[in-house]
Amino acid sequence: MPSFPNVQPAIAQMSGHPYSKFSAEIQAMGSATYPLHIGDTYLKPLEGARMTDVDLQNHPNAHKYTSPKGYPELIQRISETYAIEPERVQVTPGATGGLHLIAMSLLSPGDEVLVLAPYWPLSAGIIRAVGAIPVSVPFYDQSKSVAERISAYVTDKTVAIYMNSPNNPTGLLMPPEDVRELAKLAREYNFWTFSDEVYERLIFKGTHLPIRMEAPERTISMFSFSKSYAMAGYRCGFLLLPSLELAEIANKTAVNSFYSVSTPAQIAACAALRNGDVWLEDIRHKYEGIGKECAEILGVPAPQAGTFLFFDIADKLAGRTMDEFLLSCIEHKLLLAPGASFGVGYESYIRVCFTSVEPDLVREGMRILKSLLG
Amino acid sequence: MPSFPNVQPAIAQMSGHPYSKFSAEIQAMGSATYPLHIGDTYLKPLEGARMTDVDLQNHPNAHKYTSPKGYPELIQRISETYAIEPERVQVTPGATGGLHLIAMSLLSPGDEVLVLAPYWPLSAGIIRAVGAIPVSVPFYDQSKSVAERISAYVTDKTVAIYMNSPNNPTGLLMPPEDVRELAKLAREYNFWTFSDEVYERLIFKGTHLPIRMEAPERTISMFSFSKSYAMAGYRCGFLLLPSLELAEIANKTAVNSFYSVSTPAQIAACAALRNGDVWLEDIRHKYEGIGKECAEILGVPAPQAGTFLFFDIADKLAGRTMDEFLLSCIEHKLLLAPGASFGVGYESYIRVCFTSVEPDLVREGMRILKSLLG
Repeated sequence: MPSFPNVQPAIAQMSGHPYSKFSAEIQAMGSATYPLHIGDTYLKPLEGARMTDVDLQNHPNAHKYTSPKGYPELIQRISETYAIEPERVQVTPGATGGLHLIAMSLLSPGDEVLVLAPYWPLSAGIIRAVGAIPVSVPFYDQSKSVAERISAYVTDKTVAIYMNSPNNPTGLLMPPEDVRELAKLAREYNFWTFSDEVYERLIFKGTHLPIRMEAPERTISMFSFSKSYAMAGYRCGFLLLPSLELAEIANKTAVNSFYSVSTPAQIAACAALRNGDVWLEDIRHKYEGIGKECAEILGVPAPQAGTFLFFDIADKLAGRTMDEFLLSCIEHKLLLAPGASFGVGYESYIRVCFTSVEPDLVREGMRILKSLLG
Repeated sequence: MPSFPNVQPAIAQMSGHPYSKFSAEIQAMGSATYPLHIGDTYLKPLEGARMTDVDLQNHPNAHKYTSPKGYPELIQRISETYAIEPERVQVTPGATGGLHLIAMSLLSPGDEVLVLAPYWPLSAGIIRAVGAIPVSVPFYDQSKSVAERISAYVTDKTVAIYMNSPNNPTGLLMPPEDVRELAKLAREYNFWTFSDEVYERLIFKGTHLPIRMEAPERTISMFSFSKSYAMAGYRCGFLLLPSLELAEIANKTAVNSFYSVSTPAQIAACAALRNGDVWLEDIRHKYEGIGKECAEILGVPAPQAGTFLFFDIADKLAGRTMDEFLLSCIEHKLLLAPGASFGVGYESYIRVCFTSVEPDLVREGMRILKSLLG
């Protein structure tokens, strides 16, 4: 019983930021010239979707509470864009808040969730924070069937599977045949499927098959305006729910956790959905270009989607530990995300974001990384 | 084990909105002329704290992620305003998100929290949503000592007490001697104290003694910019934490739930704290005036603080049930909050907000209410 001064053990046991151990060195560095460790963008939101566009003449309720489900016009636009009933849309504080809301709504302490690795680090943390257990399942090993990759990790406590395609960190799409097989397995084992699709508008090549097409009855799909529309700080995303019943549950959880998403953020997200097509065309072109260039500098495959490169540097460490290597990067004002954050088995990998600062700086950072790798 | 299609029982069992049962009637009514059931305001945020003030020239990072702890300048201003180390501040999505974050950080399923009644309805829901149990404790009965009011509800599962002073719904301040006695009891029983102070800047008369002054080691204080600065839709509030350790826990929970509060909302909140003193003087004057007028119309005591009147209509129902009475109000396009939402024993009370629409409309609504009460 966590009475004063005890705290929730699930939270207490969570690890902090991977860079916490280097906080002294980072403080000494001042600001990072090459903050390639975070998924961010050098772009500003499109015109019409900036906060200065959310004026009180045109949006007299911008400072007021809106429906916990979401700003009605935004719900309507999402409904049209994704061909789903408006009642099955729930707006959330980014996809982070979306997964949190679903974890709150569906998971109990001790439940296990298969997290297909490598994965977005916060996905494991969000599952852990509600007392459930994220189980890291190596998934990008194409030599095995999907069933072989999954089955060894299923227990009688497994209640859901979390997938993220297009994938952070790899920049890969899950092949449609894998998606189909996964949907079949989810049905066999009776899992929920949590599908994180925040990069679905940043695809450069390949086909994205949303798993809700294959397992519509059990899939909760998570989306965000953060990545596609350069508005991560606004904190706006949404869920597509598989049933009216679950939409009702998600709404109750919203009311009793964050209440509603920031109204001006939702108004800006409306404008992005309404006027963002040309913008999306442009951002995809820009990101694909810089992604390809960076891949060439580093000698790794170009990404299919998203904003990251992820690769194994085991044979480049030349006797250095990963920590020593990260410290040598910090000395050059370069920050990377260490692979251990992305699942079991990725300890010798690194992730770099190729959009977090202006392309010129990114190129410079990649060249420094290249030379530090030797 | 809540595998598909089962959901988290704690959420499934939660009640919906008190007006859900009247949704057909409310739809027939169209929009409510007198929406006095919600805590909202007719005022716009002060100039400088509107979204049009959050331009990218002056705030080039307004669209970007900020620290999950909070926008550095906002943390600094809160720290100065409340004379607390910046490390012990955590910005949250309103006080709703603040209590949620604390419930996530400190409560386990089955834990009991004494909720001093009458209480803000969401407080019970937020506690319930994490699987803990809100125990409604009638507290405004001044004929008993604080210990007498509390002790009968303490069990070996009680881990915390939730209080809200200035109080929603009553508009009353907890007397300083009660605060002191409560702090003593919390120490004796070893409870956490959750202190919701979102109306502390809207006090018209009386002395507010924050319980953190009396029980600093165990008090988590919750605040919001929503009420004082007319920015409920922005979703920005904050916590003051009793220790660096708990601040660290709160920050981990933030990272793994909503990540960070909307950056432009935090920038606007900075401006409110920086330039809001004259505004606060003015809003207090306005709210005190309309609150007093409404109290006179209805023949109830004027509020000490906040935006609500709360009173018993048992002897005015004249054979009508509360539901029948609420329906007759809906026919007049008037919405009220029924007392049952505010704790056990308040079933014959109603709460009305005297700031949710322009004063002229509020007066009209109160006169209609008066005549419906007979």
